[in-house]
Amino acid sequence: MASAPLDRFYSVIPAGGIGSRLWPLSRADAPKFLHDLTGSGTTLLRATWERLAPLSGEQRVMVVTGRAHRAAVEEQLPELADANIVLESEPKDSSAAIGLAAAILARREPEVIIGSFAADHVITDVAAFGACVRQAVAAADAGYIVAIGIEPTEAAIGFGYIDCGDAVEIPAAPDARIVRSFVEKPDRATAEAYLAGGEHLWNGGMFIGRADRLLDQMRESEPALVAGLEELAAAWDDPATRGPAVDRIWPGLRKIAIDYSVAEPAAAAGRLVVIPGDFDWDDVGDFASISKLQAGGRQSDLAILGENARVLADASSGIVVSQTDRIISLIGVHDIVVVDTPDALLVTTRANAQRVKSVVDALKLSGRSEVL
Amino acid sequence: MASAPLDRFYSVIPAGGIGSRLWPLSRADAPKFLHDLTGSGTTLLRATWERLAPLSGEQRVMVVTGRAHRAAVEEQLPELADANIVLESEPKDSSAAIGLAAAILARREPEVIIGSFAADHVITDVAAFGACVRQAVAAADAGYIVAIGIEPTEAAIGFGYIDCGDAVEIPAAPDARIVRSFVEKPDRATAEAYLAGGEHLWNGGMFIGRADRLLDQMRESEPALVAGLEELAAAWDDPATRGPAVDRIWPGLRKIAIDYSVAEPAAAAGRLVVIPGDFDWDDVGDFASISKLQAGGRQSDLAILGENARVLADASSGIVVSQTDRIISLIGVHDIVVVDTPDALLVTTRANAQRVKSVVDALKLSGRSEVL
Repeated sequence: MASAPLDRFYSVIPAGGIGSRLWPLSRADAPKFLHDLTGSGTTLLRATWERLAPLSGEQRVMVVTGRAHRAAVEEQLPELADANIVLESEPKDSSAAIGLAAAILARREPEVIIGSFAADHVITDVAAFGACVRQAVAAADAGYIVAIGIEPTEAAIGFGYIDCGDAVEIPAAPDARIVRSFVEKPDRATAEAYLAGGEHLWNGGMFIGRADRLLDQMRESEPALVAGLEELAAAWDDPATRGPAVDRIWPGLRKIAIDYSVAEPAAAAGRLVVIPGDFDWDDVGDFASISKLQAGGRQSDLAILGENARVLADASSGIVVSQTDRIISLIGVHDIVVVDTPDALLVTTRANAQRVKSVVDALKLSGRSEVL
Repeated sequence: MASAPLDRFYSVIPAGGIGSRLWPLSRADAPKFLHDLTGSGTTLLRATWERLAPLSGEQRVMVVTGRAHRAAVEEQLPELADANIVLESEPKDSSAAIGLAAAILARREPEVIIGSFAADHVITDVAAFGACVRQAVAAADAGYIVAIGIEPTEAAIGFGYIDCGDAVEIPAAPDARIVRSFVEKPDRATAEAYLAGGEHLWNGGMFIGRADRLLDQMRESEPALVAGLEELAAAWDDPATRGPAVDRIWPGLRKIAIDYSVAEPAAAAGRLVVIPGDFDWDDVGDFASISKLQAGGRQSDLAILGENARVLADASSGIVVSQTDRIISLIGVHDIVVVDTPDALLVTTRANAQRVKSVVDALKLSGRSEVL
C-alpha cells in the first residue's frame, strides 16, 4: 500500500431520516440532525462533522442527504466541499446512500477506506471515539469490514446488539474481535443477560471498510442495487451525465438497510470485526433519550430544551421542548414530555416516548401531513 | 302589598372575578363568565341571563361588571337595558357590587325584591331552578333574607355548606328552612358526614331579599360601606352626578364578601332561610370541574373544549382546552389537563387543578402579567 491507512480514510455522513419518534420537534423539513438536542449549542450534524473532520480531514468528508436539506446542510457545514455533497432525489435507505458514496469515492480513489457515521447520534468523548475509529481504519486496511460497538452501560432495550466472538490479530487494531452476529432490540431480560455476560456491545450503526470491499459484499446479496449504484457513480462527477443518470436509475433502487445488505452477511461469512468503543453514545431515538442526555441522567429533573423557553414548573419532572415564546406552566406532572411548536403540541410521558411514531402514522393516514 | 312578589322581583348578576384557577383560559380580559365552559355553545353569562330573564323579565335584570367588560357584556346580552348595566371602576368584592345594585333599585322601586346570581355558575335544570327562585321570592316577601342551597350529590370539598335547621312556615315557600350557619369548605371526612347526615346543602352563593332589608342587614356590620353605596345610588341615575360620585366614593369602599356582611350575620340573627334546590349546580371552580361537566361525569373520558380543537389522543383521559388551531397530541397521559392558548400553555392533572392559582400568583410576582 502506498500510504498509511488513515491517509486513505474518508468519512461518509448519511444525513437522512426524519426521526418520527421526535415529532413534532423533528419534521420532514427540520429533521433530527438539524436540531441541537443536547443543549450543546450545536446541531447533531455539526457535532458529527466536528468529530470526523479531525480524523479524515475537512476535504475528506462526504454528506449524503435529501435535496430538500441541501441549504441547511451547507449552512451547518460551510467547509463541506461541493463535490462532497450527494443529494438524493428521494430516500432509498442506507444501502443506497452509503453504497453510492462508496461507489463515487472508489472511482475517485480506488484504495479509499470509508466510514459511515449517522448524522444524528450523540458522542461527547471525541478522543475515545477517534481512537476507536483509528483501530477500525487499521482493521479495514487489513481487509475486514468493521463495525464500532459500544460498551453497554445499562440493559437498554432500545438498541440492537453485537455478539462478539474471539479476538482477531490485526496490527494497529488490538481490540478487534470477530462478530458472531447482530441481534435486534432485545427484551428486558435478554438485555440484562447481555449486560451481565459482557460479550455484547450496542450496535452503534457505524461501519468502516474499503469502499471496494463494501461494494463487493453488498453485490453478493444485492447485485442489481450495486450495478445501479456503480452506473450512477460513473456518471456522477460530470454535470452533463449526473442528472439523467439519477433520473433513470435512482427511482428503481431497492430500499434496504445496510445492516441487511452488508453487515449481517459479512458477519455470517466471518468477514466482519468489531472495535469496542468505551465512550458515551446515544442514537437519541426518542424524547426519553433526550431527557436523559439533558438531565445528565437525573430522573427527578426537568430538562428544558429551547433557546427562548419560558417554563414555570411546580413539582414536575421530565422534558419540555419549546419552539415558541409561549409561557409553559407545569403543575404536578411527572416524567412528562411536552413539545411545544408553532403548529403542533405533544403531551406524553417518558414511558410512552417510543409510541410517538404512532401519532405521526395517524397524522399521515388522516391527511394532516402539513404538520409532519 | 300592591302586587305579587314575583312582579317586584329583580335579578342582579354580579359579573366579576377572573377565575384564576382557570388560567390560561380565563384572563383579566377574558374572564370566566365570558367563556362557554360546558360545550353548550353559550357563555356562562348568557346562560345565566337565560335562566333569569323568564323569572324577572328581560327589563328587570341588572348586571354589575368591570368597565373593561362593558362591550363584551353588551354583546352577550343585547336585551340588557342601558340603565341596568352598572360599571365598577375597580373590583370591590360582592358586598359593594350587590349592595350598589340594591341601593339603586331600592331608590327606583322601594319594595323591590332582588336576587343575586353569579354570572359564572352552571345550572342546566332551568325549571327546577325557577321553582326554587319563586319560593325564595315568596320568602323574601315575608321579610326573610333567603339563600338557595343545593342538595349535595357527592362529598365535595370544594364548596361551602349551609347547615339547615327547622322548617319555617311561609306561604308559597313550603320548603323553606331556617339557616343555622354557613360552613367553609370542609375536609373530606366532614364532607362525607354532611352528605350522610342530610342536614347540609351546598352554598350556591345565591341570595334573595327585599333590597331595603339586605341594605339594613349590611348596615348593621358595615355602616360606612352602606352609607357610601346609598350616596352613590342617589347620584346614579343622573349622568351629571354619577361620575363625580363614583370617583369620590368607589375607591374608598371596603372590600368584603356578601357572605360576611349579610349572610352570616343574618343567619346568626335568625333572619335567614334557605330554599333547598334539587338541581344540578357547579361553580366551575377549576379544570377538574370543567372536565366533569364536559364528560358527563365519566372519569375515563377525554373532554375537549374549543371550537377548532384538533386533538389526537391515544390512551389518554382528562381535559383539553384548545384556543389555537394547533394539532394537540396526547399519548398515554391520564387525568391530564392541557390548556392551549396563543401565549400560554398549561399542563397539569385534574388532581392538581386547584393549584393553578399558584401559577397565576407566580406570574404576577415575576412581572409577567401580560399573560394574566
